[in-house]
Amino acid sequence: MINVSIIGATGYAGAELVRLLSSHPGVKIRHLVSHSQAGKEFADIYPNFAGSHLTLDALDTAMLAQDSDCIFTSLPHGTGDNVIAQLFAAGKTVIDLSGDYRYNDVSVYEQWYGVKHAHPELLCKSVYGLPELHRNDIMGAHLIGNPGCYTTCSILALAPAVKSGIIDNKSIIIDAKSGSTGAGRSVSQSMHFCEVNESVKAYKVAVHRHTSEIEQELSLLAGADIALSFTPHLLPINRGILATSYANLAQDIDSDALYGLYTDFYKDSPFVHICKPGTLPEIKHVVGSNYIHIGFVPDKRLGRLVLVSCIDNLIKGAAGQAIENMNLSFGLEEKTGLDFPAWYL
Amino acid sequence: MINVSIIGATGYAGAELVRLLSSHPGVKIRHLVSHSQAGKEFADIYPNFAGSHLTLDALDTAMLAQDSDCIFTSLPHGTGDNVIAQLFAAGKTVIDLSGDYRYNDVSVYEQWYGVKHAHPELLCKSVYGLPELHRNDIMGAHLIGNPGCYTTCSILALAPAVKSGIIDNKSIIIDAKSGSTGAGRSVSQSMHFCEVNESVKAYKVAVHRHTSEIEQELSLLAGADIALSFTPHLLPINRGILATSYANLAQDIDSDALYGLYTDFYKDSPFVHICKPGTLPEIKHVVGSNYIHIGFVPDKRLGRLVLVSCIDNLIKGAAGQAIENMNLSFGLEEKTGLDFPAWYL
Amino acid sequence: MINVSIIGATGYAGAELVRLLSSHPGVKIRHLVSHSQAGKEFADIYPNFAGSHLTLDALDTAMLAQDSDCIFTSLPHGTGDNVIAQLFAAGKTVIDLSGDYRYNDVSVYEQWYGVKHAHPELLCKSVYGLPELHRNDIMGAHLIGNPGCYTTCSILALAPAVKSGIIDNKSIIIDAKSGSTGAGRSVSQSMHFCEVNESVKAYKVAVHRHTSEIEQELSLLAGADIALSFTPHLLPINRGILATSYANLAQDIDSDALYGLYTDFYKDSPFVHICKPGTLPEIKHVVGSNYIHIGFVPDKRLGRLVLVSCIDNLIKGAAGQAIENMNLSFGLEEKTGLDFPAWYL
Amino acid sequence: MINVSIIGATGYAGAELVRLLSSHPGVKIRHLVSHSQAGKEFADIYPNFAGSHLTLDALDTAMLAQDSDCIFTSLPHGTGDNVIAQLFAAGKTVIDLSGDYRYNDVSVYEQWYGVKHAHPELLCKSVYGLPELHRNDIMGAHLIGNPGCYTTCSILALAPAVKSGIIDNKSIIIDAKSGSTGAGRSVSQSMHFCEVNESVKAYKVAVHRHTSEIEQELSLLAGADIALSFTPHLLPINRGILATSYANLAQDIDSDALYGLYTDFYKDSPFVHICKPGTLPEIKHVVGSNYIHIGFVPDKRLGRLVLVSCIDNLIKGAAGQAIENMNLSFGLEEKTGLDFPAWYL
Repeated sequence: MINVSIIGATGYAGAELVRLLSSHPGVKIRHLVSHSQAGKEFADIYPNFAGSHLTLDALDTAMLAQDSDCIFTSLPHGTGDNVIAQLFAAGKTVIDLSGDYRYNDVSVYEQWYGVKHAHPELLCKSVYGLPELHRNDIMGAHLIGNPGCYTTCSILALAPAVKSGIIDNKSIIIDAKSGSTGAGRSVSQSMHFCEVNESVKAYKVAVHRHTSEIEQELSLLAGADIALSFTPHLLPINRGILATSYANLAQDIDSDALYGLYTDFYKDSPFVHICKPGTLPEIKHVVGSNYIHIGFVPDKRLGRLVLVSCIDNLIKGAAGQAIENMNLSFGLEEKTGLDFPAWYL
Repeated sequence: MINVSIIGATGYAGAELVRLLSSHPGVKIRHLVSHSQAGKEFADIYPNFAGSHLTLDALDTAMLAQDSDCIFTSLPHGTGDNVIAQLFAAGKTVIDLSGDYRYNDVSVYEQWYGVKHAHPELLCKSVYGLPELHRNDIMGAHLIGNPGCYTTCSILALAPAVKSGIIDNKSIIIDAKSGSTGAGRSVSQSMHFCEVNESVKAYKVAVHRHTSEIEQELSLLAGADIALSFTPHLLPINRGILATSYANLAQDIDSDALYGLYTDFYKDSPFVHICKPGTLPEIKHVVGSNYIHIGFVPDKRLGRLVLVSCIDNLIKGAAGQAIENMNLSFGLEEKTGLDFPAWYL
Repeated sequence: MINVSIIGATGYAGAELVRLLSSHPGVKIRHLVSHSQAGKEFADIYPNFAGSHLTLDALDTAMLAQDSDCIFTSLPHGTGDNVIAQLFAAGKTVIDLSGDYRYNDVSVYEQWYGVKHAHPELLCKSVYGLPELHRNDIMGAHLIGNPGCYTTCSILALAPAVKSGIIDNKSIIIDAKSGSTGAGRSVSQSMHFCEVNESVKAYKVAVHRHTSEIEQELSLLAGADIALSFTPHLLPINRGILATSYANLAQDIDSDALYGLYTDFYKDSPFVHICKPGTLPEIKHVVGSNYIHIGFVPDKRLGRLVLVSCIDNLIKGAAGQAIENMNLSFGLEEKTGLDFPAWYL
Repeated sequence: MINVSIIGATGYAGAELVRLLSSHPGVKIRHLVSHSQAGKEFADIYPNFAGSHLTLDALDTAMLAQDSDCIFTSLPHGTGDNVIAQLFAAGKTVIDLSGDYRYNDVSVYEQWYGVKHAHPELLCKSVYGLPELHRNDIMGAHLIGNPGCYTTCSILALAPAVKSGIIDNKSIIIDAKSGSTGAGRSVSQSMHFCEVNESVKAYKVAVHRHTSEIEQELSLLAGADIALSFTPHLLPINRGILATSYANLAQDIDSDALYGLYTDFYKDSPFVHICKPGTLPEIKHVVGSNYIHIGFVPDKRLGRLVLVSCIDNLIKGAAGQAIENMNLSFGLEEKTGLDFPAWYL
């Protein structure tokens, strides 16, 4: 049994970690930490846990280090730095869901997040927790920067195309649409039900932080710097991301060849499903699961590739992928505790 | 391992059975039967099962009887009669999700459903599959009429009050609101997205069939005939029922006494959660789970009791309860394969 | 031309007043007052008014009195008391959308709202602005308490039955469901999109303030005190209320007689539509309009009447009815500026 | 008064025409024609018209020609050809909402729609009914091909950029998201509430017919052939389109210059609102109105322009624009009957 604790358990990603970990056969939940709600029962905040008898603790790093093998930190970027450093120094495995440990180059982080990094010396110790690209590095890793939700959905759609060189890397455009849990649980006028319902908007056009994360990983695959357009949109649904990605084809390639390229690239990745030519994913095909579904349409008329990819932003885009990383880090089978289909309804 | 098959696997309740059974540790799915889609892959209809390699079979009763210990029938009422009779005669356990085997008195069924029952002789062999009221009869039963969704949510809210005699049984009114999966997967103008979205309607006022099922069970508890008002409403959400029930109090009773009465009544029922005085359930507290949450407000000013109860109509109101019945029938622990919290988001 | 101003123009009811009044052929909008947003363009807050050049003013009672014939006050209860008193003293017509001027008996207001009324002496000067019941009093009135949204939908459904004595007034139960604009524009955790979406909840069971307003008006009609159950529910839609009302029939009455009773009662009320026997209203039939649709089902089996009524909470339940009151007060035709059908989609 | 009739009045676009025309001060509705529902009251199908006493007629071209000055045809493409030809021959003004009369080149129509055009000789007589680009031709026109919904939203966003030559016309990508009324009222499994709700999907990628319409109009503006990517997506909302368009900048241009370019281009177009730099449109800003809102972000880092545009697909994308065309054709002020703000809620 892996003893796990969660810091930031009352946010949406934190609560999803609690939900998924409570059904995971290989873990024991030790502490749920909440700054603002310490002392309360978890079920007072999330009544879907009625009868669970989970309680919220204040942050006590020493206690966490003593009782836990693995700590998930689900805090706003910049706020968990010191506790992460302490837990890592204590030899614990830390899986961080913020943007703090996702970057190889601290200057990229500091430029896009607009803050100084408190522990830049740790970045070289951290692993980017996208199993499909870094599975071997994640096995045994003790500091894992869990990828962003938009990022996961975008990188996995484009990775085989970028790696194989079939597209013009200067022409990449990602148009992504996300459910509202992606904005987190904090209250604001713009997240009021009546402001979101029956509407859609684009936001942070050309400046969303996840752009830099996508560029980092695709550049690594390409072996050359990639800069791309990324536009996020807010959807009036709870969960799910659909990303539509565009790139000019650098060579002629048909659907069967694309299907072969993609299925081969992900042949060892249990959570990637490549849609057969002629079919495309929908958000409801993946919500509730740790899967990503990827479909493609080569537009011969224009010499352009269109990719459509879908994930559950709270699972493959956050909590589920964090557990997948834990499984790999601790030597469990990658699908442990995550091997269930999407809800569909 | 229990070998299970599902007839009517492509309806919403059938697909939910497939989803839940595919994560159940004690069963093996043998056949998924679909009249209209035989030969297709299940994932062609429900892409959330991509990679599952489940295929749909035509109905072959002999094959089902040979390969299965337990068969779930999820067909419109009246259409599964003969296959159920044959499978039952072959010694199989049949759990029927239609209204056909829920009634003790065939005349009540025939009056409310407006059809002749094909096998009235089997009604005395069937058990009403509401574990909270008939747990002992379900254990070992071979023909189980799985309750309706509205029915489950309504009966469980009222049962302790009716059994204890604290309410005037002539005054019962149930105002129930259901998500749209309750209407099934069949296409119709009235279920078009744009007709349902951003609206609510009442339907089948005073004539909904579930009324008779609720009256049967509450009358049994009361030891006297109960007739009551039941009004269903259609909600623009996928899953969940919230029922608000009203009855005049026959005696003065406060919240603490009510809480004691309800928790005691359900002390052996693992899927019933009684909300503490001052709190009430919401649909999102139960959707995705097999739980029912029940809250209550005694209105001293009027001498009236208000009950609020919530379930997931596809789980506790259909597929989950069917599996709970299977567990009991086959001697498994009641919560097996169903012990997970609601999704909340 | 009637010169109108709106205090509290940035709330949802206030903004709806601006929208409807901007298409009203008989008014000129003079001032939009907002405490928190004074100085801004109205279109900065409601971009649907882009190009309108409406700006928000700070509160200046003297200026309002000088420039306006009619002032709509759309503020939280208790906060507009003094400005209303001053404008009324200045001879202006004030139509107040809060609960402050809806009551005949100040003690009822103070009991249900839990505050002292600042100007109880004005209550006898104010008229309850429900045209269907008080049309003659509203004509020429200078202080109008505009009814609550739940109240309007409930009273109008029950008024003919109560007035005619066909129901047992002790048995009235109103189960009401409202869209989320009814909760106003203020931010709170409970109004976050993800908390409301795909869920429904009951709230303020047995203690909602609108109960007292409904009781006041129905008691007046009955000539005797009526106490009743009222349960509000929050729906994951923007607009609309559906109220399902129940009462025991005091006499045998069939659908045709009920249809005659209701159409006759409302024969001079242009915004009331009585659904033909066998049909029932849905929220989408009225949203976007000032209409109320009322349907009924007499349940002979139980001797009980079930009524279903629907309004747009922001129009007939707030801004539209306020304009209807203005029309009557100023001698315009009642439908002026309000004579458009619901949106349906 | 213009005597108007509508063929295909029971579809969503047809019903929206009825709704908008019933508030238009310059028209009298003469006939509502429905093939499938002739003889019924319009309010039986759209109860938001309760009390309107509009009835549905069978198609009688001679009667329509005799009684009407202007006929709106809202039928599936290819089905209204002959009646349109007859009404046009009779000297009537016909405004067709299908794709049949939108094309200058019949071969483009036949290629994208996959059918023979029944009256190719009429194409040179028809005008493309996009007032912002063809206002002068529409004035006095007798056969108007009303643009598609996606088309309107896309063309108007790109027209100033294409016309001015600031973008590379080979690089245009339009990623469009539409509410579900865009799919029409026909029933299908894919439009069942539970299939659409809480999901988003892309469809007809690289092959949607509106692509050819957008290319026709932008090519005219550019004076050269333009081929572009267009991807439609289905949203779980009733109304509204948001299109996000991308193109590489052919020259350096900042936000102020773009704002000047766009506002100047549309200075005579009363329904176009250009968002100030730093702000972007949302679907809720336009739904319920005939406006289009267009925002832009020049991404200097990539040398790429991102445009966001929003319309109500049933109004500016169908019925409202058709009325705008009628106004122009008959010499009325362009905004007549359409001069109202969006609903916002």
